[in-house]
Amino acid sequence: MTGTTLDDYTDRYARRVRGMTASEIRALFAVASRPEVVSLAGGAPYIAALPLDAVGEMLGRLGSEHGVSTLQYGIGQGTLELRERICEVMALSGIDAACGASPEDVVVTVGGQQALDLVARLFLDPGDVVLAEGPTYVGALGVFQAAQAQVVHVPMDEDGLIPEALEAAIADLARAGRRVKFLYTIPTYQNPAGVTLSEERRERVLDICERAGLLVVEDDPYGQLGFEGEAPAPLRARRREGVFYLSTFSKTFAPGLRVGWILAPHAVRDKLVIASEAQILCPSGYAQAAVATYLGTMPWRQQLKVYREVYRERRDALLDAMTDLMPEGTSWTTPTGGLFVWATLPDGLDSKAMMPRAIAARVAYVPGTGFYADGTGTGAMRLNFSFPPPERIREGVRRLAGVMEQEIAMRRVFGAVGGAAGRRGRAGSDVPGPDLA
Amino acid sequence: MTGTTLDDYTDRYARRVRGMTASEIRALFAVASRPEVVSLAGGAPYIAALPLDAVGEMLGRLGSEHGVSTLQYGIGQGTLELRERICEVMALSGIDAACGASPEDVVVTVGGQQALDLVARLFLDPGDVVLAEGPTYVGALGVFQAAQAQVVHVPMDEDGLIPEALEAAIADLARAGRRVKFLYTIPTYQNPAGVTLSEERRERVLDICERAGLLVVEDDPYGQLGFEGEAPAPLRARRREGVFYLSTFSKTFAPGLRVGWILAPHAVRDKLVIASEAQILCPSGYAQAAVATYLGTMPWRQQLKVYREVYRERRDALLDAMTDLMPEGTSWTTPTGGLFVWATLPDGLDSKAMMPRAIAARVAYVPGTGFYADGTGTGAMRLNFSFPPPERIREGVRRLAGVMEQEIAMRRVFGAVGGAAGRRGRAGSDVPGPDLA
Repeated sequence: MTGTTLDDYTDRYARRVRGMTASEIRALFAVASRPEVVSLAGGAPYIAALPLDAVGEMLGRLGSEHGVSTLQYGIGQGTLELRERICEVMALSGIDAACGASPEDVVVTVGGQQALDLVARLFLDPGDVVLAEGPTYVGALGVFQAAQAQVVHVPMDEDGLIPEALEAAIADLARAGRRVKFLYTIPTYQNPAGVTLSEERRERVLDICERAGLLVVEDDPYGQLGFEGEAPAPLRARRREGVFYLSTFSKTFAPGLRVGWILAPHAVRDKLVIASEAQILCPSGYAQAAVATYLGTMPWRQQLKVYREVYRERRDALLDAMTDLMPEGTSWTTPTGGLFVWATLPDGLDSKAMMPRAIAARVAYVPGTGFYADGTGTGAMRLNFSFPPPERIREGVRRLAGVMEQEIAMRRVFGAVGGAAGRRGRAGSDVPGPDLA
Repeated sequence: MTGTTLDDYTDRYARRVRGMTASEIRALFAVASRPEVVSLAGGAPYIAALPLDAVGEMLGRLGSEHGVSTLQYGIGQGTLELRERICEVMALSGIDAACGASPEDVVVTVGGQQALDLVARLFLDPGDVVLAEGPTYVGALGVFQAAQAQVVHVPMDEDGLIPEALEAAIADLARAGRRVKFLYTIPTYQNPAGVTLSEERRERVLDICERAGLLVVEDDPYGQLGFEGEAPAPLRARRREGVFYLSTFSKTFAPGLRVGWILAPHAVRDKLVIASEAQILCPSGYAQAAVATYLGTMPWRQQLKVYREVYRERRDALLDAMTDLMPEGTSWTTPTGGLFVWATLPDGLDSKAMMPRAIAARVAYVPGTGFYADGTGTGAMRLNFSFPPPERIREGVRRLAGVMEQEIAMRRVFGAVGGAAGRRGRAGSDVPGPDLA
């Protein structure tokens, strides 16, 4: 009964998690959270924009007046009260009773992450293929890799997932005899790319999946955070069948409560509940009451407007600074909502190799490789604009642009960036780089 | 893209969850929660005994004064503040720094259920064997079955798990060439049996597992709820290596917050964190702050005394009523802590078949079969005494004893109970029985 036994036992699991990027991201965030660092690395909402006094008062009453129920065990599916409120939220974007949305088929989860994990648990067997945008949400990659599934990326352009590329990927996999379980997609204000699947492509993507007998797992955490009018209706609003719709209150209210949901096809709703019960028994009754009461008694639609306004201003700050300061050869997306910009670096720059120098210059981002299952993305990075105030964003871009200029200069001298230059840069810094190995 | 596709996809998962008793228990609770029913079926703490005004005030401040951090994302392992408090709690029962307990090796989970699920995810492969007491916690059975592991039960007597039976089970499985991954045990105030592993047996069980190279997963939700002095020290307090210690604040504070933990061997701590991040990203910062603040600023040791006193009185009410009212041939355990009594019915009575009649008589319990993976337990039931007040407990036992007397009388007339008599009893009731099929 020693470490050896543990190692034997966990070897298999170690293989499962090898290549998971979650721990990389964690190490990065540990460094990026130092106050002197401008972090464009996170994905955190700007909680300070909430009416915290009123929220606190509400939270207090949920304990003092309703503690006997809110602090007690609940049912695995989540409270009917919250599931009804969730249907009101979904109806805003067109997922309503007319397209079969019902509180009966909503399963409350521990944030969007558990929603993803439950769908993976229900459907994925080792060796299965999942199609996903490239780049895609790092937490989804963690889930799929833990399930020992293979992620095949489908490229995007500024209008989102490219239908022709999706068709080609499906055909290739069919020829190779691979079993594809579903398309995982974030069609609106995509994380990390910041692009949105166009109206016209939504129908084509759905048609392609329908013809191929492919389920669609639609992840929509950002859909209500549009800066320029409404986003195209979610995929689930267009099809009653074949689409799992996942969302969360982490971006529109409070991630610290960990409340998300799945709107599931009726046929599998109960299996999701059983799987969730095996995982967590039931979601927090207190957190559910907090979200339901927030939606039921507080001006949450007004609060969404506040968030949209704050984030729009910060996006503008980021894009303006990039236009002013980024070295020639850098390009980036122009998000119309959400939290992220995806930047592509000048030829030859490696965002992961550059990280230690960026941290030394007190700016952080997430290297593009974190968002791919296949090691690509070295020439790109994700920049977040929801959390830092505009002046910090501008300062962060200034620092980042400086680091990039240096990389480019070194590359001119040494002919390459990353290797010797990289080590020298790191050694020359008194801030240890994150462990990105 | 139809229900057929979904069915195809979920067939495999349906096989995985077949035999899971969670849905049975859920259906039962739905009926048992009607106000006219005396439910001895649950496992809920008596939340009304908490100082809810003070708790509410604290919860409010966590939102209004600390919302910027408590409502934000956190780290996967859980906050250091809470992990330090958890170490203080564990130290009370002898799991302290001297035996290697450290906040570094604590992983905060979504209640005890996620703790179990994470350990299963880390260690179990399809076809593996888990040893567990018979009967054992129904939620653990759900986890192990979802992982496609086989549970082999080891019998208990009034001093808990029988070491000789454990040795025999290990030897049998070794001869059969089966891979046993760990012993899952609730040594103190066991759920559902209400018995406690004796001091002397604790060492023997640990020695047996050590010799066999078997990990021990010690689940200890009730250890601080003893009515007659301190319980024997947990297994983890006796061994630095080879024991995963799992616990929760669901029984000592509030299940609605969903906060539990694992104290893991250092070698696998990080793998547990990565697995948890893939599942839920991070535990609720708000719930963690609530528990940490409760432990740091409120008289929680005093509150434990209140719970012990309330539960001791209710246990006495249950045992006294059973002594007064139960038909001859009924036997039961005498718990010295925790929430449950395990009753064994007179020969020939079937607790599951009897359920519809019990519900018709407005009393509920959990049939013994729910706590076994192998279909045994028909002649037993679990009775909870933590939630209903003493006078309701007595009334529940009166109703239950009446139902049992009727069963015995019918059995005398018809020669068996369950079949025809069972259906007649059900048809004669206007309360539909729970779906226990």
